[in-house]
Amino acid sequence: MHVARTRTHTAWDRTLSPLAELTPGQELVVETAEASGGQLDAGSDPQDLLGLDFGRLNPVTGPFAIASARPGDALVVDILDMSVGGWGWTACIPGFGLLADDFAAPHLRISKITEGSVELIPGLEIPLAPMLGTVGVAPPEPGPHGMIPPRRWGGNMDIRHLGPGARLILPVGVDGALLSLGDAHAAMGDGEVAGTGIETDSTVRIRVDLLRDAAPPTPVVETDARSHRTGRALATTGIGPDLMQASRDAVRALLDQIVARSGLSPEDAYLLASVTADLKISEIVDAPNWVVTAHLPLAVLD
Amino acid sequence: MHVARTRTHTAWDRTLSPLAELTPGQELVVETAEASGGQLDAGSDPQDLLGLDFGRLNPVTGPFAIASARPGDALVVDILDMSVGGWGWTACIPGFGLLADDFAAPHLRISKITEGSVELIPGLEIPLAPMLGTVGVAPPEPGPHGMIPPRRWGGNMDIRHLGPGARLILPVGVDGALLSLGDAHAAMGDGEVAGTGIETDSTVRIRVDLLRDAAPPTPVVETDARSHRTGRALATTGIGPDLMQASRDAVRALLDQIVARSGLSPEDAYLLASVTADLKISEIVDAPNWVVTAHLPLAVLD
Repeated sequence: MHVARTRTHTAWDRTLSPLAELTPGQELVVETAEASGGQLDAGSDPQDLLGLDFGRLNPVTGPFAIASARPGDALVVDILDMSVGGWGWTACIPGFGLLADDFAAPHLRISKITEGSVELIPGLEIPLAPMLGTVGVAPPEPGPHGMIPPRRWGGNMDIRHLGPGARLILPVGVDGALLSLGDAHAAMGDGEVAGTGIETDSTVRIRVDLLRDAAPPTPVVETDARSHRTGRALATTGIGPDLMQASRDAVRALLDQIVARSGLSPEDAYLLASVTADLKISEIVDAPNWVVTAHLPLAVLD
Repeated sequence: MHVARTRTHTAWDRTLSPLAELTPGQELVVETAEASGGQLDAGSDPQDLLGLDFGRLNPVTGPFAIASARPGDALVVDILDMSVGGWGWTACIPGFGLLADDFAAPHLRISKITEGSVELIPGLEIPLAPMLGTVGVAPPEPGPHGMIPPRRWGGNMDIRHLGPGARLILPVGVDGALLSLGDAHAAMGDGEVAGTGIETDSTVRIRVDLLRDAAPPTPVVETDARSHRTGRALATTGIGPDLMQASRDAVRALLDQIVARSGLSPEDAYLLASVTADLKISEIVDAPNWVVTAHLPLAVLD
């Protein structure tokens, strides 16, 4: 199955009709649209940022129903391959971003994306590191729900480690799960401090699977081996408006994973996390919810 | 010069007499004592944690005066080599750590440290990754000041990237700077969530230098190339009781560094940080001050 990037929605809602029903184990190719939803193009200038319709931002392709999925299950999404478009945009959007008070004026860079590299500013290249900013399922609460804040059900988590080779495990909130994805970045730093990455189109090949009655409290990522200095890592999430609470949630979720996977006591899991796991601020701009991730190199559990 | 680990102090104070005066450019070898200051040893058990005298924790070796250093200068500390002891300790200390409410009972692991590896729990080995938890200078405010919280003047920052090959740039607060260091860890994760790393003795070879009138607002680290997936990184710090404010401070300091080093505009520096810099929570346990670091791979400025 190949799904075009025109088949998008711009709010999470459990009542949306699915584009298709997928079988657990099925692969599909999904095109995603860049985060302005066509409001910007390679010829845009900073003034175009002032006219952005926020209701059209962050379109996601979907939703896809997963046959037999029901609340309490875990939905597993493997990102098998990913390619991105030839251009991207990165902006200071007035009122948005970690330092919105310092950067009141609109600012926009259109970058050229080539094999392995992104030219953000003429003469300044950064490594290509594609990832999906938004992958989520429909919340069980009646919608619509806005696209910008991430939630327990995933969505705009902006975890830069969610690229090719990574696995995402989401809790299922409604029958069929209703999976959607979008907001590809050709590169992004942990935190996405200005509020945007290298925003671009993408084409993603994914595989979906189900784990019965195994919903994690918050989304869990297994990163690609290249994203961590010590190989494939397990990254648990804390999502909410307070960074301290999100940190505690991410660490508690990590300890649960360590205990379940290794048989260590909770006390030893806590010590192991203290000496090997890394706390990262994955996003601090998608108000009102921030994402903290706790990354454990999986090699220590071998 | 070789300084023994018996020559320690357990509070920051501008009135302490220096052990020696160093010349800018001078190298020296400093031994540091493990963080209990001799209250624990390789035969300790969890009950020994209940009798810890907190006033004796985190001893640092020093202070060292740096000739001609004066307030407003930057003190550069290069960590040239570092070796650690043969054993270490890691603990849940009641009332201390990110999840102190979940882990009320004392818990202690004594680890064996060998070439390249640390056996935290029998049969569970993690990679050796030595670093210094505490490097700082005397605050200009009259003391004494406790050892646990880090401050603008450095101290117990617990930045795991401050290992061999790294450079630390500290603001000088008093004449002579009064540098001290200690709290070595054989390994630690970003965040140090249980409040302890692999706490151990170390022997460190450092070189000190001065940059006249170049004090950064908060400490700056240049990491060793091995600590980041894309090579040597510049890490700026935000230090304080609020993670959001600390994140803003770290990013503002990073933008200042990017502008100074590259000539980019502040707006372009902000976009560059958004797409390449990583926000890490370096420590979230040394109450009341947490440390957020913003890491930029230096290769993007080449």
